[in-house]
Amino acid sequence: MSGNTFGTLFRITTWGESHGPAVGVVIDGCPSGMQLREADIQKELNRRRPGQSDITTQRKEEDKAEILSGVFSGKTTGAPISIIVRNRDVDSSKYEELRNTPRPGHADLTYELKYGIRDWRGGGRSSARETIGRVAAGAVAKKILSSHGIEVLGHVVALGGICAKPASIEEIRENTEKNPVRCADPEAAVGMYAMIQAVRSEGDSVGGVVEIISPGVPAGVGEPVFDKLSAELARGLMSIGAVKGVEIGMGFRSAVMKGSQMNDPITIKDGKPGMLTNNAGGTLGGISNGEPIICRIAVKPTPSIGKEQCTIDMNSMDETKIKIRGRHDPSIPPRIVPVAEAMVALVLVDMMMRGGFINPVTGEK
Amino acid sequence: MSGNTFGTLFRITTWGESHGPAVGVVIDGCPSGMQLREADIQKELNRRRPGQSDITTQRKEEDKAEILSGVFSGKTTGAPISIIVRNRDVDSSKYEELRNTPRPGHADLTYELKYGIRDWRGGGRSSARETIGRVAAGAVAKKILSSHGIEVLGHVVALGGICAKPASIEEIRENTEKNPVRCADPEAAVGMYAMIQAVRSEGDSVGGVVEIISPGVPAGVGEPVFDKLSAELARGLMSIGAVKGVEIGMGFRSAVMKGSQMNDPITIKDGKPGMLTNNAGGTLGGISNGEPIICRIAVKPTPSIGKEQCTIDMNSMDETKIKIRGRHDPSIPPRIVPVAEAMVALVLVDMMMRGGFINPVTGEK
Amino acid sequence: MSGNTFGTLFRITTWGESHGPAVGVVIDGCPSGMQLREADIQKELNRRRPGQSDITTQRKEEDKAEILSGVFSGKTTGAPISIIVRNRDVDSSKYEELRNTPRPGHADLTYELKYGIRDWRGGGRSSARETIGRVAAGAVAKKILSSHGIEVLGHVVALGGICAKPASIEEIRENTEKNPVRCADPEAAVGMYAMIQAVRSEGDSVGGVVEIISPGVPAGVGEPVFDKLSAELARGLMSIGAVKGVEIGMGFRSAVMKGSQMNDPITIKDGKPGMLTNNAGGTLGGISNGEPIICRIAVKPTPSIGKEQCTIDMNSMDETKIKIRGRHDPSIPPRIVPVAEAMVALVLVDMMMRGGFINPVTGEK
Amino acid sequence: MSGNTFGTLFRITTWGESHGPAVGVVIDGCPSGMQLREADIQKELNRRRPGQSDITTQRKEEDKAEILSGVFSGKTTGAPISIIVRNRDVDSSKYEELRNTPRPGHADLTYELKYGIRDWRGGGRSSARETIGRVAAGAVAKKILSSHGIEVLGHVVALGGICAKPASIEEIRENTEKNPVRCADPEAAVGMYAMIQAVRSEGDSVGGVVEIISPGVPAGVGEPVFDKLSAELARGLMSIGAVKGVEIGMGFRSAVMKGSQMNDPITIKDGKPGMLTNNAGGTLGGISNGEPIICRIAVKPTPSIGKEQCTIDMNSMDETKIKIRGRHDPSIPPRIVPVAEAMVALVLVDMMMRGGFINPVTGEK
Repeated sequence: MSGNTFGTLFRITTWGESHGPAVGVVIDGCPSGMQLREADIQKELNRRRPGQSDITTQRKEEDKAEILSGVFSGKTTGAPISIIVRNRDVDSSKYEELRNTPRPGHADLTYELKYGIRDWRGGGRSSARETIGRVAAGAVAKKILSSHGIEVLGHVVALGGICAKPASIEEIRENTEKNPVRCADPEAAVGMYAMIQAVRSEGDSVGGVVEIISPGVPAGVGEPVFDKLSAELARGLMSIGAVKGVEIGMGFRSAVMKGSQMNDPITIKDGKPGMLTNNAGGTLGGISNGEPIICRIAVKPTPSIGKEQCTIDMNSMDETKIKIRGRHDPSIPPRIVPVAEAMVALVLVDMMMRGGFINPVTGEK
Repeated sequence: MSGNTFGTLFRITTWGESHGPAVGVVIDGCPSGMQLREADIQKELNRRRPGQSDITTQRKEEDKAEILSGVFSGKTTGAPISIIVRNRDVDSSKYEELRNTPRPGHADLTYELKYGIRDWRGGGRSSARETIGRVAAGAVAKKILSSHGIEVLGHVVALGGICAKPASIEEIRENTEKNPVRCADPEAAVGMYAMIQAVRSEGDSVGGVVEIISPGVPAGVGEPVFDKLSAELARGLMSIGAVKGVEIGMGFRSAVMKGSQMNDPITIKDGKPGMLTNNAGGTLGGISNGEPIICRIAVKPTPSIGKEQCTIDMNSMDETKIKIRGRHDPSIPPRIVPVAEAMVALVLVDMMMRGGFINPVTGEK
Repeated sequence: MSGNTFGTLFRITTWGESHGPAVGVVIDGCPSGMQLREADIQKELNRRRPGQSDITTQRKEEDKAEILSGVFSGKTTGAPISIIVRNRDVDSSKYEELRNTPRPGHADLTYELKYGIRDWRGGGRSSARETIGRVAAGAVAKKILSSHGIEVLGHVVALGGICAKPASIEEIRENTEKNPVRCADPEAAVGMYAMIQAVRSEGDSVGGVVEIISPGVPAGVGEPVFDKLSAELARGLMSIGAVKGVEIGMGFRSAVMKGSQMNDPITIKDGKPGMLTNNAGGTLGGISNGEPIICRIAVKPTPSIGKEQCTIDMNSMDETKIKIRGRHDPSIPPRIVPVAEAMVALVLVDMMMRGGFINPVTGEK
Repeated sequence: MSGNTFGTLFRITTWGESHGPAVGVVIDGCPSGMQLREADIQKELNRRRPGQSDITTQRKEEDKAEILSGVFSGKTTGAPISIIVRNRDVDSSKYEELRNTPRPGHADLTYELKYGIRDWRGGGRSSARETIGRVAAGAVAKKILSSHGIEVLGHVVALGGICAKPASIEEIRENTEKNPVRCADPEAAVGMYAMIQAVRSEGDSVGGVVEIISPGVPAGVGEPVFDKLSAELARGLMSIGAVKGVEIGMGFRSAVMKGSQMNDPITIKDGKPGMLTNNAGGTLGGISNGEPIICRIAVKPTPSIGKEQCTIDMNSMDETKIKIRGRHDPSIPPRIVPVAEAMVALVLVDMMMRGGFINPVTGEK
């Protein structure tokens, strides 16, 4: 398959299945001499952990990170950092009946068609548990960015048709983690929460939009013409399961704008070139312009639903129906927030190393 | 910079500036023994050429492709194919006045900040002429795909707020190249054409949405978890200048859908597993499912506009104003169609080679 | 550091330190549907394990491989295969005194200068234990090659100036594993064994030459002009610690030959083009020619010796002396054999996938 | 084929056939703001040009470099640098008779078997003309290294069994370019010259050994465990046609040494850690140690010889004989010197960028 490595200079490789013994990640290219404890990683893993609120799956997992290499006396050594998380609450019985009936909207059918074999227990490799490795590595990337004055902040901006009011960076920082839907607009959060409860009671699910904003990225990050910052972000974000769209800045709204509305006027800010607005989302020609990077992702509704759906029996090749039981999030956006932040952080560290903004060995400028 | 190569097994490297002597591409990894003539490439270059209609820039360029290597006796040899296109109608005088005043919405400022030097003539490396190499290589990729029964069809689905009616693959094939806006809905095309004329007369520009549909892709293409087909498409398409968003299948519309609406029911078609609908846009879990691949890109309005805009003088670091003269497309979507097709074709060939669907040496299955 | 991944389509990432909790490897790109048990891997790990004879280090390690992912019901699924080996017999006390005095011929000084921090326990990342991941992955690669009729056979051809007689492939297969020095010439093996005992009693060590021969590789493997089969083999083999030279076919002996002696005459063998001799070592122009691939590596003497050596104290920056205690192999060649085989196998599988000889998903031709 | 790109951050892609219209290279990742003229490149091309002395092929080629992109106002812009060299003295007539009879020791047969088609004119892609792109790119790499105080010096140390006396760096700098064999020992040079004349008169050819020494490389370059500096050098050097072996430092001689002889004692030099000897050739554990990098390559005798050789007719599949006419170097080492220097320079720039020693955008430390 060979598609499980991401990045050039700051490079991660993830592995593991939902109901196998463990999942994990190897981080290669972390600068040396950086303080790193398991708690740094645990903090982010706890944000994506199942069971953190009543609108997430009730699978019980501690998701405890163990660092097996690359750290000595509490500091990174420049050697690869291997992180492992054991799977604990594994119950494959509910999946037994799904062995031969691929779930609509899931990767069951495509894995089966591609590989001819599939670990059907809990979704196997295509389970959302795969994102544990991303989030663990993202925690390390965020720590590096933090020392360069860069934040990566995700929040839910729309869910099931309910849109949040525009939020300032301060509001995002303050409000997002205070409600279970991770919305920076407390009023909209209430509606989104109700929406999730409603669709769940129907045995259905609902999609949404997550925004990731990254202030502090210096001008000059991104490698045209193919490895543009925008292109690398798009790839990283679209590689997350359930993501069906990515946009930068005004994104699809730019399609209905005129040039005179879309172009950000150039000005002098604090003695340096800057923009009066940020319709571009912080990149021009694929290179950061010093304004905050702004991306948005479209998250499809959870494909696992209780309603009856049409599918096939792979053995008899007959049409049949299924209802999916088991423990699922009725809406993915709240839990995808830390995953999307992780991907943005991973892209930023890698591209800043490639552009000479972060020394790949010392981690300094 | 090192961001000018795209692909793993089928790999292209582009080079060249708008007003330099030439632009070009090296294609590495083309199977051997394939018939290839300059006319195969010219056909696609003519579709992106300036001056092809009265709504494109009036720069006069033949854009004549010369093959310098990799083809012997009319057939590819497996060696890298170097293609060069000379720049002819180069007039840098209008850019002289823009040397120190970066154009809003363009990459002038970010190139200057990143590299400390910039070929300001005609946009230099960040000019749309850079896409010649992509389209030339895409012509080769399309030829390979064609021998596997795969088409790549682009068309404008929205422009300046005017939306085309949904079109069948037959309508796209039939209608798109018959109008200068490349819209498969002839009525909408008339409105879009009028819209372009209107914004041009105002000295303004307008954005739009382009869809690329690719029927014939077999199930199984794409390498989870990072090199998903969707992720590679997103990266390739977002690497095109002026693209601010990418979506697959229902894309951002999936954010307001319920699972029971979004999930494509699985059925048996022609004796094989298939989908009753194609909301997923042909990929599940990042792997193609046998349905047509459907992507859409958001294209921002042309940043070069005649209206007065705020910018700065990079020498004095004072604020100033500019009006951009010169030859520009008032709307990019019609001319971006062949470029977007090229990127999709390049991704498909590379991913099909990686997945063992196209033998990298013989080009066969 | 980001140099811990090897390969393009068949790709491995290793991690772990000598005295950390574990070492391991992630194999990405293994075809699906292949039977794989821990015993397949253990067999090769046992060949490189310490303590297997009285001329190897007496560190006691079971080196027990655990497969954590990528295998389901005894078969590979196409997902990454994570293999972990716990370190058991860890005794860092003897290294305590070497914390500030880099050992000559070791990587202590260069790791310290590069990273500013070093896991000094047992050599840390630069320990020979790092090769466990290579050998485990090599076991999988060999299994794939085996199903294509390809063997990879290593043997010691010289040690401390004692040269083995030329051996046929049958002799290599038969004799190599029967003596602790892994020499296909039983008489020379006796001398080599005595030589190792002698240098050990002096507190010294000795180098040697290992040959790897790979019959069954089809003609056509290798990707000119940079990713020649010979170049990839050279890179893979030179990446093993203690290797100071790599040659293909006649190698350095070709430097004293005339063209009329070196050129292998072309002939017809079994109805196909073949060579009368194999001075080229199975590659011409970087592409395999159907004859067995033959490489040789120069292995330097173990740098850990009991004799007094000059070094420095990194704290005081004064010159000082050290004698190295601890458990070491007095000669590396016997134990490097399985490691060198692993690297050749990894290169062959990756290059055969790249050239379309092994389908990366099915593993078939 | 996709093997025509070399490097990660400083990356070159070469293209072109011996008797096609041109050969060339695209350099991607050159820092911006560096003065670069065609004369910088021409200087190195002249060192590898045919016809420079009476012991090289008499093909008449100016090998004039044209820069087509990436340079503006005499300075690099960070955009890819495309360099093209037209083929002038193309005479394919002598190759006509070799169309179906592969030349022993050449890549004719393996290209034919791999690709099923072959540009037989002048060796096509496998001709030594392919190295023009390497040398042109190497000229740029050397210029970058020079600004960091690093030299790359190649010289012939053995030819046809005649060995040069060991030479100091000053002698290499002074003497090498003064004789047509590029040997730093003037007396040995006379013998080597006579040897070449002698084998040529016999219609034969002869091999040799070239050493490349690179003083000034700082400690810390190289990315264990796979992308060791030694491994990358081995790959780069082994990718040159006719090279059959690569060694670092004592190389194959280390196989007969004891640890007490091989280990370089560590000492303090100019207040910094250094080595009393340089048996390691400047790398320990794959990381540079501050001493000069020393590599040696084994160059096989030119396969094109006038003597009658056995081969086959690819049409009839009968055995036959050939005598090769045409213009050939009777010994490759003198002309491979600038090519080997280029590969070492390319590896050093790339690895220094990867390790943070050269900023990939500014070119500074």
